[in-house]
Amino acid sequence: MTRSKYALGIDYGTESARVLLVDVATGEEVATSVYEYRDGVIDEVLPGTDIRLPPDFALQNPADYIEALRQTVPAVLATAGVSAADVVGIGTDFTACTMLPIDKHGVPLCMKPEWRENPYAWVKLWKHHAAQPEANRLNAIARERGEAFLARYGGKISSEWLIPKIWETLNKAPQVYEAADRFIEAADWIVLQLTGNERRNSCTAGYKAIWNKQSGYPSDDFFAALDPRLRHVVDEKLSRHIYPLGERAGGLTKEMAQLTGLREGTAVAVGNVDAHVSVPAVTVVEPGRMVMIMGTSTCHMVLGTEQHIVEGMCGVVEDGIIPGYFGYEAGQSGVGDIFAWFVDHAVPPEYHEEARRRGLNVHQVLEERAAQQRPGEHGLLALDWWNGNRSILVDVDLSGLLVGATLATRAEDIYRALIEATAFGTRIIMETFEKSGVKVNEVVACGGLPERNKLLMQLYVDITGREFKIAQSKLAGALGAAMFGAVAAGKAAGGYDTIFAAAQKMAHLKDEVYRPNVEHRPVYDQLYAEYVRLYDTFGRGENPVMKTLKRIRAEALGVGGGSAVCP
Amino acid sequence: MTRSKYALGIDYGTESARVLLVDVATGEEVATSVYEYRDGVIDEVLPGTDIRLPPDFALQNPADYIEALRQTVPAVLATAGVSAADVVGIGTDFTACTMLPIDKHGVPLCMKPEWRENPYAWVKLWKHHAAQPEANRLNAIARERGEAFLARYGGKISSEWLIPKIWETLNKAPQVYEAADRFIEAADWIVLQLTGNERRNSCTAGYKAIWNKQSGYPSDDFFAALDPRLRHVVDEKLSRHIYPLGERAGGLTKEMAQLTGLREGTAVAVGNVDAHVSVPAVTVVEPGRMVMIMGTSTCHMVLGTEQHIVEGMCGVVEDGIIPGYFGYEAGQSGVGDIFAWFVDHAVPPEYHEEARRRGLNVHQVLEERAAQQRPGEHGLLALDWWNGNRSILVDVDLSGLLVGATLATRAEDIYRALIEATAFGTRIIMETFEKSGVKVNEVVACGGLPERNKLLMQLYVDITGREFKIAQSKLAGALGAAMFGAVAAGKAAGGYDTIFAAAQKMAHLKDEVYRPNVEHRPVYDQLYAEYVRLYDTFGRGENPVMKTLKRIRAEALGVGGGSAVCP
Repeated sequence: MTRSKYALGIDYGTESARVLLVDVATGEEVATSVYEYRDGVIDEVLPGTDIRLPPDFALQNPADYIEALRQTVPAVLATAGVSAADVVGIGTDFTACTMLPIDKHGVPLCMKPEWRENPYAWVKLWKHHAAQPEANRLNAIARERGEAFLARYGGKISSEWLIPKIWETLNKAPQVYEAADRFIEAADWIVLQLTGNERRNSCTAGYKAIWNKQSGYPSDDFFAALDPRLRHVVDEKLSRHIYPLGERAGGLTKEMAQLTGLREGTAVAVGNVDAHVSVPAVTVVEPGRMVMIMGTSTCHMVLGTEQHIVEGMCGVVEDGIIPGYFGYEAGQSGVGDIFAWFVDHAVPPEYHEEARRRGLNVHQVLEERAAQQRPGEHGLLALDWWNGNRSILVDVDLSGLLVGATLATRAEDIYRALIEATAFGTRIIMETFEKSGVKVNEVVACGGLPERNKLLMQLYVDITGREFKIAQSKLAGALGAAMFGAVAAGKAAGGYDTIFAAAQKMAHLKDEVYRPNVEHRPVYDQLYAEYVRLYDTFGRGENPVMKTLKRIRAEALGVGGGSAVCP
Repeated sequence: MTRSKYALGIDYGTESARVLLVDVATGEEVATSVYEYRDGVIDEVLPGTDIRLPPDFALQNPADYIEALRQTVPAVLATAGVSAADVVGIGTDFTACTMLPIDKHGVPLCMKPEWRENPYAWVKLWKHHAAQPEANRLNAIARERGEAFLARYGGKISSEWLIPKIWETLNKAPQVYEAADRFIEAADWIVLQLTGNERRNSCTAGYKAIWNKQSGYPSDDFFAALDPRLRHVVDEKLSRHIYPLGERAGGLTKEMAQLTGLREGTAVAVGNVDAHVSVPAVTVVEPGRMVMIMGTSTCHMVLGTEQHIVEGMCGVVEDGIIPGYFGYEAGQSGVGDIFAWFVDHAVPPEYHEEARRRGLNVHQVLEERAAQQRPGEHGLLALDWWNGNRSILVDVDLSGLLVGATLATRAEDIYRALIEATAFGTRIIMETFEKSGVKVNEVVACGGLPERNKLLMQLYVDITGREFKIAQSKLAGALGAAMFGAVAAGKAAGGYDTIFAAAQKMAHLKDEVYRPNVEHRPVYDQLYAEYVRLYDTFGRGENPVMKTLKRIRAEALGVGGGSAVCP
């Protein structure tokens, strides 16, 4: 009997990094370790200084990314009792667009004494929102020029993405822009650190940097129309070499081998993004099955064999999720965080007391009561736009709406209506995909919500009319990264030659399947029709009251108005 | 120096009767006493029996009305140290339409052993809602026949009013209908008890019994179209003799003098209604000044010199409030009860804890926080239809709507938006009156809310652009009744010859005046325009989602749908 081989997945999240050691043959998760970033999300004061950050800033310290390796990798090897010789490959995934300026040796500018006190020299985290003016101008100019790329991104480039973030640095800190040899996704920077090789991945390039496999980046003329100094930004500050997912970026350097306790030369995969890397980890490597990562927000991913333009999606990228397919991404910007808002700010004391008495949380008390209702019984309907609408309207200035309230309305009624509203929002996304030629036959759900709330799952199933399956792993991101690590190693070295082969062995679903209740479907079809009508009335300009209210609010507060983003 | 003269006002409310002894010369309130009805609102079991009541029933026991006199009148005389000889007049007011069947001696059928166990023999309280099917049919038939009276009542006769309630008894308990010598408003029955004279008052006849000073009741043909057995209902079961407000109904009987400790022959005024009797008590005896009685719901009353048809009002009645004027009534069916719903069902624990800690109530905590906001700052807008819409849409199937919610929305934001929504609703009523030729130059507010919530008053003023004054009396109903009692006595007996003269001496306002803040007006004009647009979209059939939700809810619960009422 041969010894088991292992792959290591490193999942860089917003607050922490999680490392997972996986048996390559079975996908068994044998050890895990978490490192909470010491500097976390930097949004008030620059670490080690008194420098206060402007509003909408969200930075990170790249030293935390390295420290995560030092703390976690030796720990999982020790816990599992696995020898470094049996770890055949390493994969990583990252939040995106999380980007930083580096010098010609790959050193982050913020690690250099002369730049430490300049916020623009640090890592801009995905949720850094200070580049909104640049995004607005970029979108206006792209529309004016009729740039074809806009349609691939639902008509809007988000302020969270790479080009607005670079342009913001040029505008606000031209000396940082000047000093930067390159700007790079953290997803690619960590691979550069591990291997010594810069191998920019097709996922972040496609979804966050307006790159396309066929047509490349936008033209130099387009960049010059933004700002003459940006004309050569791609050649000067980025790279036109983009590598498909699963490819071997290189072998682990000697320094990194020492830091981690792994063997020098261990195969490292090109970088990836947390959401996208989860797709094969939940068994999906073919068209027709949508992956929904359901947490504070929801990310919808589905594969296709052709490039279709789908209204309001976040992006379509060839090889962006699984090599050989077009990866489609859509999203709902508020899901779990709406339910959390509701529990924190709109549920009366008796529910909190009951939860405390019974050792439950408030969500469980609300779920229990709401689950006793028949569809439509609460008499409510909501538009789930508490955090704007990502797909398919791509409009952050939309807001939440609730209709049907009476003096008999109770907290569980509103709670259920909010869940239903997010499910209606998902149904619109699915129907929009299908209308555009991208099939959605069934759904695999992962993330925190499907585990925690059975009522929610059944409502999604009844409302969308699709079967939902649940991923087995609670660490889909890290598992997916490990799978790509195994592919980077290749079959000869004990891994796999393709992500398809890896998925067949390493990815698993739970036995549990949620199936639509046929008796509930007609009522939800009626309610969905009403939802769509409100959606169109308030979301497509017929009654722009939500924008008017935001404008009046901004004027009352003496600040500028909001604006539209597809993060 | 002559001894002071006094008038007694007896205010029959939903849960209790309140008696007030007033100095006729000054309006000084010298003593008061409250009697809580022993049987209260009877909506579950018939008193002294095991008989369970059907849904939507709300009955009262007329014995409570008599017991109230026995308990309270001697008490206020004793407290005040006033001699019965110095009480010149008695006035009463009642909830309406609160009605009962009586025999030819005026004895309520429910007081007779043979009828005690029949619910239809008891007093139907104003909020008895079981006559909705009859109201629906009455409205349909009236519309078909083109009955002119409908326009005087906003296009709909309420299930709470007299004719539907009588018809319900005919349908459900024809033996009670048969045994009843007459049906009578409790307002008139109590006067019958006090004086031995049946003197039906013009206020309940006009607002609740479809009577009109010029044209009388609907035709016998109309009643026959409802049901052939109703053809002669007016002559057989009611009366065509209607008496204007303030008239002397008669002198106190010997029996009632013994019961109350007052003198036999003391002048008693014809009956009146709690809301309407408050108008002169808050100094309003002329056109142009609207009286708003603001509590769980709001009643708007204004006088005019001509009969105009105003959209969605509850009624216009000549001599219905003040003799010589047309009395206009409109209403908002949910005001204070929406705020109470919000506090009970949608405010998180921290606000309740703060209130407890600081010895305040939750409304005060919310008011304090909401008062710090600038107009429009919360970014919300609501339709205040949690309890349907009375004026101007006359539709109980409408429901509440909130738009503009975000993850940053807090309880005080929604609280303020709900108050503003009720103020926008009042502004629509005012503008509808003015458009129809009924002037509303300023407002006098009374009831519980104006006393309790300064923010609410300022928002009403800023939103309507009218000055608001506040009634001095907290017992406007009982004071108004006492004033009409003084008028029934007449000047020669130490009272007054007219309600105008009585109002000049006995009615007072507080010094405090709420004046519009000119800086807030433009923002509220913008928000009002948005409110009107939502009002029209959801209230006038363009998007009937509220009715669809109620229908789906009713189907889910397996019950019949709701229907429209103007109570």
